[in-house]
Amino acid sequence: MSDALRQRLFEQLDAIVLIDPHTHINALQPASATPADILGYHYYTELAHSAGMPKEQIEEPGLDPKEKCERLFANLAPLQNTIQYSWLLEIAREFFGFDGDRISADNWESLYDTAAEAMAADDWAGQVLEKSKLQAVFLTNDFDDPLEGFDTAVYIPCLRTDDLVFQLAHPEIRARLERAAGTSIGDSRSLRTALGKRFEHFKAKNAKACAISLPPDFAPTKISPGRADTAIKEVCASGPEASLSGRQAVANFVFWTLAEFCTEFHLPFDLMIGVNRRVYEAGVFQGQDLYDSRVSLIQYRELFNTFAQVTFPTSVLASVTNQELTSYAWIFPNVVPHGHWWYSNTPAYIERDLAARLEAVPQTKQIGYYSDMYKLEFGLPKFRMYKRVLAKVLAEQFVVDRLWSEERALALGKCVLRENVDRVFGLGTGYAVEDLLFA
Amino acid sequence: MSDALRQRLFEQLDAIVLIDPHTHINALQPASATPADILGYHYYTELAHSAGMPKEQIEEPGLDPKEKCERLFANLAPLQNTIQYSWLLEIAREFFGFDGDRISADNWESLYDTAAEAMAADDWAGQVLEKSKLQAVFLTNDFDDPLEGFDTAVYIPCLRTDDLVFQLAHPEIRARLERAAGTSIGDSRSLRTALGKRFEHFKAKNAKACAISLPPDFAPTKISPGRADTAIKEVCASGPEASLSGRQAVANFVFWTLAEFCTEFHLPFDLMIGVNRRVYEAGVFQGQDLYDSRVSLIQYRELFNTFAQVTFPTSVLASVTNQELTSYAWIFPNVVPHGHWWYSNTPAYIERDLAARLEAVPQTKQIGYYSDMYKLEFGLPKFRMYKRVLAKVLAEQFVVDRLWSEERALALGKCVLRENVDRVFGLGTGYAVEDLLFA
Amino acid sequence: MSDALRQRLFEQLDAIVLIDPHTHINALQPASATPADILGYHYYTELAHSAGMPKEQIEEPGLDPKEKCERLFANLAPLQNTIQYSWLLEIAREFFGFDGDRISADNWESLYDTAAEAMAADDWAGQVLEKSKLQAVFLTNDFDDPLEGFDTAVYIPCLRTDDLVFQLAHPEIRARLERAAGTSIGDSRSLRTALGKRFEHFKAKNAKACAISLPPDFAPTKISPGRADTAIKEVCASGPEASLSGRQAVANFVFWTLAEFCTEFHLPFDLMIGVNRRVYEAGVFQGQDLYDSRVSLIQYRELFNTFAQVTFPTSVLASVTNQELTSYAWIFPNVVPHGHWWYSNTPAYIERDLAARLEAVPQTKQIGYYSDMYKLEFGLPKFRMYKRVLAKVLAEQFVVDRLWSEERALALGKCVLRENVDRVFGLGTGYAVEDLLFA
Repeated sequence: MSDALRQRLFEQLDAIVLIDPHTHINALQPASATPADILGYHYYTELAHSAGMPKEQIEEPGLDPKEKCERLFANLAPLQNTIQYSWLLEIAREFFGFDGDRISADNWESLYDTAAEAMAADDWAGQVLEKSKLQAVFLTNDFDDPLEGFDTAVYIPCLRTDDLVFQLAHPEIRARLERAAGTSIGDSRSLRTALGKRFEHFKAKNAKACAISLPPDFAPTKISPGRADTAIKEVCASGPEASLSGRQAVANFVFWTLAEFCTEFHLPFDLMIGVNRRVYEAGVFQGQDLYDSRVSLIQYRELFNTFAQVTFPTSVLASVTNQELTSYAWIFPNVVPHGHWWYSNTPAYIERDLAARLEAVPQTKQIGYYSDMYKLEFGLPKFRMYKRVLAKVLAEQFVVDRLWSEERALALGKCVLRENVDRVFGLGTGYAVEDLLFA
Repeated sequence: MSDALRQRLFEQLDAIVLIDPHTHINALQPASATPADILGYHYYTELAHSAGMPKEQIEEPGLDPKEKCERLFANLAPLQNTIQYSWLLEIAREFFGFDGDRISADNWESLYDTAAEAMAADDWAGQVLEKSKLQAVFLTNDFDDPLEGFDTAVYIPCLRTDDLVFQLAHPEIRARLERAAGTSIGDSRSLRTALGKRFEHFKAKNAKACAISLPPDFAPTKISPGRADTAIKEVCASGPEASLSGRQAVANFVFWTLAEFCTEFHLPFDLMIGVNRRVYEAGVFQGQDLYDSRVSLIQYRELFNTFAQVTFPTSVLASVTNQELTSYAWIFPNVVPHGHWWYSNTPAYIERDLAARLEAVPQTKQIGYYSDMYKLEFGLPKFRMYKRVLAKVLAEQFVVDRLWSEERALALGKCVLRENVDRVFGLGTGYAVEDLLFA
Repeated sequence: MSDALRQRLFEQLDAIVLIDPHTHINALQPASATPADILGYHYYTELAHSAGMPKEQIEEPGLDPKEKCERLFANLAPLQNTIQYSWLLEIAREFFGFDGDRISADNWESLYDTAAEAMAADDWAGQVLEKSKLQAVFLTNDFDDPLEGFDTAVYIPCLRTDDLVFQLAHPEIRARLERAAGTSIGDSRSLRTALGKRFEHFKAKNAKACAISLPPDFAPTKISPGRADTAIKEVCASGPEASLSGRQAVANFVFWTLAEFCTEFHLPFDLMIGVNRRVYEAGVFQGQDLYDSRVSLIQYRELFNTFAQVTFPTSVLASVTNQELTSYAWIFPNVVPHGHWWYSNTPAYIERDLAARLEAVPQTKQIGYYSDMYKLEFGLPKFRMYKRVLAKVLAEQFVVDRLWSEERALALGKCVLRENVDRVFGLGTGYAVEDLLFA
């Protein structure tokens, strides 16, 4: 009974047209140009490397895409158990008609050729979006992105602010900001002006969110204008050699100022909490970051209290932080659990984290999932992975344990999968936080 | 098979007459006077507020109970997924004959009127206790509670000590203690005397436990008499303006002294570990507290070693601490896992925390559940939520996985639900820790 | 369906001949001499003590084995729910023909006599190994163990290094090292020479691993030769009275030097992370240690980066650390999740930790299980406990959720249960990390 129920729920969830609220898609090249863009996703390169494949074989300069794929396919057998390998299989099956259980020496080349041909089609990105039932995807744009040359209703801009907060000591970052804002930076006032210009630009280009990823030891706090001035001057003068306390004061000043602009421009501020960068320094590209799970949302107490008008869609890197996220969202109106991030984006962690959220956070203020993808082909398998888990939790926890009707369980699923994306980011035909679903 | 098994186990567990070992019931007004006492439970006000309802609408001074309920019912749709909403439905169904799936604009008023009428009955509290199969409930009494005007065999006193440990710098707290104890306080000796008087009073009134909730950074330690004297004098002289170290020394001195009196008066000392108060300062009444999950029972090492004769029924606020609680209870004779507290009191967390305890802590020293309720009506749905999870874990983990008979699984359930409450708190016909269940 | 599937998978997993990659077996007395060796396992003594049995009754000097068993059996009823009690029952059934559900006053003596008779057989250890399908077991040898008098192909040496790293300030430890190495120790150079001698000895005796257990606050780092010399001289002069920083510098120097020798001698270095020793000081023998779950693998960042050629089979004491272990193993080639240790070695924690590893760590670099046993009889029930959980996870997560064939799920089980032990520790007929299972 329960297996059939899960399957029915999954199929209905899978029919919903979605908006993906967080990706790393390049709007000017959204889909894969060759299969090497699929296999080059860091999940495959880092897992193959972890299983023994030398980095040099993967990242050889000038490597031909087909040769790169041949090398990687020859090293994927140790990964066949991983959920990431299942994404690859689902892409091969759904987009390219593959029908095996494993991609091997015998079949990789025909798969490669079929995929390469499909990818060469003019409207390949459009085909992928349609097959994936994706109406739109959020981007992750550099602060100086001109945001031109694409349809911002389909590729929705999002202002990524990591560099502004954590890298402003680097002269090239400041130079880029000065160029993009058309102003010079020397103190807190001029820095604020420059940041405001970028909000104006992004807002004019249909941006629907501001976003940042944060290390586990970050604890945002308000900096006095005087301290900010001193610190900005020091950082402008000394660059990365500036004192740690000076760089931290600048980071806090910029972060706080971004939150102020989110209030003014009515933008949600996506927080992605917990990543340590470059922990494994000899790792492959994008396969070097890890984390320290000893982080607490208590570090964000002042922020959440101060910016009551800003919605914070919040992701946590370690599953252990999910209970705090659930509890903070349970009482703070402006804290919204947001998807399942990176190392917590595998079924075992999704299931337990989702189950906890669905039974304790108001249904109107939790966003089920985003793909975090770099290429459009991954939207389909990643969302399906989530929808399978969602169907399982709805079946077991609501239909079986709490005697809900299937229809009602499905409505809850639709709410977290789609409606809340519209509601939280202010999309579509005007959901508001006050709307009641089933009143 | 397993669903039917769970149902059979649940029904048998649900037939057991219980004693609720931790509540916030006011013995002089134990049940709800109007439905606003039900809907005013912080779970509904904080979740409605989190979902967008302004605090001012909820806490308007002088608000009529029916008007308050109308406003809240109009804002509960976003909460229909939560387990707390299911408690409300179960109360409506079991006590007031409601038979819908949701309480809406169409039916709330008749539900209100039916409930208000029932609550007006003279013996309403008695009816609730009987229907809930609750033989007695523990209270949470202020240290200066006279403990008069009620039957202490049904409403069992428990000395709550948060104010004594953490608020003694406030002159009004000291004044209340001096009045209640009939002594004056100026140093460690006189403070100890005053505390001892309250233990005598509580013990004479059938108190069966001492209890305290503790912030995540508390790490109890013994304070020398000299240091205690200095600190108490400072705190008496300077009040809340006393130095942090002075206030901490007083907190540690009082806490340690309470543990000494628990030894002398043979009282278990309930520890509720991990709460940060007033994190969301603009939140509704009782909807402001959260936590930092980075806490360890290693902070209680000295306490558990020193007070080998005191039983510590221990609750943890964050589920991540449950494994430590399980492990400490596994080797420390005086550590007893105690229920599922607050933010960990939802089925997903109960299931995983309970499963871990049932397979590794001796069955005679774990207390399954307490309701933590403020009004008697919540005992029934909260205990049933627990019993459903208990039935699931017993079915899957013991009957299916370990091939136990249903009878034996049921005996284990009864042990943690009822027998251990009697045993640990010294109630009933004289269970002792040495009693063997199935010898 | 799923129950039958689990059973089929379990039976096939249970047919595999195993090598146990971590035990505390004494190769000169590997099996129990009397049933008191079974009941004297700390799990029974510590749980019986936790449930109320005085330590003095358990550890009375000169206590006759049968009397000790009589006393303990009389105190095991409170433990009948624990998974550890189920190990005892499985030993009684499988090795001694017992066929009850509980061992009680009525049947313990005949069980004792039957077991004692069986244990008296000349080849009892061989019988146990055969019945348990154990081809070989790893030992945990003191650094000065002569490693003589046993077959090192069956009892595989492993160099345990806790004393070298953390106890070198004790004169008797240094004296033992000097004796074993045939050198004297006074500075970093002579200490390194002595350690190298022990690696030569162990390697010559077929040692396949170096191992250590580590407290939660340990964060290994490289010490400069000058600092090491100063610290070693201080520690040699002052012993345990040496400064904390001096003792820590020595610990770090020795630890780092061990990792260097692991590179040179091609030995995996087992890390067992997270234990606090002697937390419950009045506890029974081996029943005094606990932990602080606030530990992170970020503490091992420098180690994992520096020693890219050393494989680190890594165990974590608290289940909350399992996600970090999974993530670090997912990108670091030299980090290998290793079994389920001690307080995390119960089915509820194994299930969630295993599920997370199986879906995200390459199948070729995770070691399913080790028994950690002191006497051979425990291999059978402990491995079976694991295999039951493994069968459940393979059935639910791979066959049901991911539509794998049973055959393929079984191959994955075999890989983590057996093949990876051979591969990681360089046993058998030459698996290498590069081998692909299903290419």
